[in-house]
Amino acid sequence: MTARWPVHVREICTPALVVDIAALDRNIRRMAAFFADGACRLRPHFKAHKTPEIARRQLAAGSCVGLTCATVSEAEVAARFCRDLLVANEVVGPGKLPRVAALARERDVTVAVDSVAGLEAMAAAARSAGVTIGALVDVNVGQDRCGVRPGDDAVALARRVAAASGVVLRGVMGYEGHLVGLADRRERDTRARRAMADLVATADLLRDAGLPCEVVSAGGTGTYDSSGRVGGVTEIQAGSYALMDSDYGRLDVPFEQAFWVLGTIVSRPAPTRCVADCGHKALTKDHGLPVVRGIDGAAVISLNDEHATIGLPADARVQVGDSIFLRPSHTDPTINLHDVLYAIEGDRVADVWPIAARGYPEHRRPSP
Amino acid sequence: MTARWPVHVREICTPALVVDIAALDRNIRRMAAFFADGACRLRPHFKAHKTPEIARRQLAAGSCVGLTCATVSEAEVAARFCRDLLVANEVVGPGKLPRVAALARERDVTVAVDSVAGLEAMAAAARSAGVTIGALVDVNVGQDRCGVRPGDDAVALARRVAAASGVVLRGVMGYEGHLVGLADRRERDTRARRAMADLVATADLLRDAGLPCEVVSAGGTGTYDSSGRVGGVTEIQAGSYALMDSDYGRLDVPFEQAFWVLGTIVSRPAPTRCVADCGHKALTKDHGLPVVRGIDGAAVISLNDEHATIGLPADARVQVGDSIFLRPSHTDPTINLHDVLYAIEGDRVADVWPIAARGYPEHRRPSP
Repeated sequence: MTARWPVHVREICTPALVVDIAALDRNIRRMAAFFADGACRLRPHFKAHKTPEIARRQLAAGSCVGLTCATVSEAEVAARFCRDLLVANEVVGPGKLPRVAALARERDVTVAVDSVAGLEAMAAAARSAGVTIGALVDVNVGQDRCGVRPGDDAVALARRVAAASGVVLRGVMGYEGHLVGLADRRERDTRARRAMADLVATADLLRDAGLPCEVVSAGGTGTYDSSGRVGGVTEIQAGSYALMDSDYGRLDVPFEQAFWVLGTIVSRPAPTRCVADCGHKALTKDHGLPVVRGIDGAAVISLNDEHATIGLPADARVQVGDSIFLRPSHTDPTINLHDVLYAIEGDRVADVWPIAARGYPEHRRPSP
Repeated sequence: MTARWPVHVREICTPALVVDIAALDRNIRRMAAFFADGACRLRPHFKAHKTPEIARRQLAAGSCVGLTCATVSEAEVAARFCRDLLVANEVVGPGKLPRVAALARERDVTVAVDSVAGLEAMAAAARSAGVTIGALVDVNVGQDRCGVRPGDDAVALARRVAAASGVVLRGVMGYEGHLVGLADRRERDTRARRAMADLVATADLLRDAGLPCEVVSAGGTGTYDSSGRVGGVTEIQAGSYALMDSDYGRLDVPFEQAFWVLGTIVSRPAPTRCVADCGHKALTKDHGLPVVRGIDGAAVISLNDEHATIGLPADARVQVGDSIFLRPSHTDPTINLHDVLYAIEGDRVADVWPIAARGYPEHRRPSP
């Protein structure tokens, strides 16, 4: 027998991720259309799917200024097909900044900074490699994770960035991650606009101080149409819109669920219970339990490493060996568990897409 | 420059998993010693660490009858160095049983069954390959996940197994997974012994019916010394004892924490807060948030995909660039996120161990 990839969905070894190409493309087109007027641009977040084939489709759909990445290894993968990369994260730690500098030889690379120590290490790496790395001052717009305070603190760090050789100040970023999941549209919109007003005001302070600030970067799938309509915001970092999940599915955003975990029922030990082969190793529950598709009244009761235990109506026609589709609650860490996406058209496998930026690939090889 | 692996812990790119070889070996020796009298044997669960180098050390320490695996792909990796494999799980779904049959050509392979449909598919795969696959009847001892009821239902399925050609009935298994985490020693012990009494009574019913039942397999790290002392239980499937986690660390079991997630502080935006580069992609929170080692008063407040936000005493001497060690709450799914374990002796990296059975390797290649 010759080795081959599955042709039909029913041949896919489970658990596995499947993506509906048509739904994915509709999501990508809808988001690109929103930014088509050019007032604000889209910088899709690669971390949501980590899949070059999806990123290529996002870039091809237009309205994009480049890609957002969360890690250096994501940027290394994205650099194969994208010229303009933002690592929207502080880059600190052994071996990382020389890798950023190496990327900056061939690509426009910008990194978030929120400390003098981080800035100095980045500037040293850039000088050592003879390159220039872009920097955005990371501003805390209320998420209370990383980032300096808006206003004077941000201006003070921006002055240091502008003065550092090897680094060029490009602007500011501020991620309103505490707001992207708010279910109430009015509250989400009001608070996102307020957070963006703080960020844009900080950008103005930089300019008043004679500092460059061409980029004001922010936003996510829950706030793209609020933050992306605030004057002065230049780009939105949304990522989850391409594949969606049940957590974003609660919101009134115009994107469809486009990926699922495909599993197999391995046990039906009682009329009101069955067990699928999809556990913590196939999807995460940090945003809640996954949702069963296509079986009326079925609900996931619990997850273990290799199992989803599912409550059923006693008359449910579910048998050992049946396929099952589960809708993940959180795209990014679920994607991170898998090596490939099976790209389907109806019940046919059209392609198999490597999730090339999964995990931390730097541990799979010795360092240069 | 020549590519090389890190020599010192401080050179490891973060986030990463580190294992303290000395602590690991002490855990392995302690568990092997408990089973050294031979009344009950140990069948370490490979799923806990998925790391051949650790499994080899477990087998070399003695008292082991073979390895337990959760998936076919784990068994395929373990078959490289172990002769006797139990897949303690129902194996159902596209392509899996022919792989089990292929393993059974060279190894003793036993699989859990809890349905006639599952049994018939396994028997057909065995006959098609001209091999014999062992089977344990999976008995629900109270976990309410997979497994038939103790008593008559188990005997009825065992008769079907014994009558099926291509499959040989080896006995019963029953995982008391609902009890392994009970903090109260007396309650855990009493209830585990009661669950095992049900399992052993079912084994006796099989023998009374003239059916073979050489194997009675059960147990985990929380119950090995309760279930493993019930007469008639022949092997214990514990796995987490080798590396341990904060969830099992609550219990009075004589094993040490032997692995950590190594991270880097990437931001100290406020006196009472810092942020490390260890989020959902580096460890899971399905058993709770990770625990900070070595910083008095520090506690993880929240996890995001790439971040652990940590609360600090305002006078904590924590700086951007510092290393940090986090103790995971759940070994198995945390291990599953990583490709290698950095095996350390003090602050020196002695070796880099591939987590060879991570994920579902079958998706990384076309099927035969």
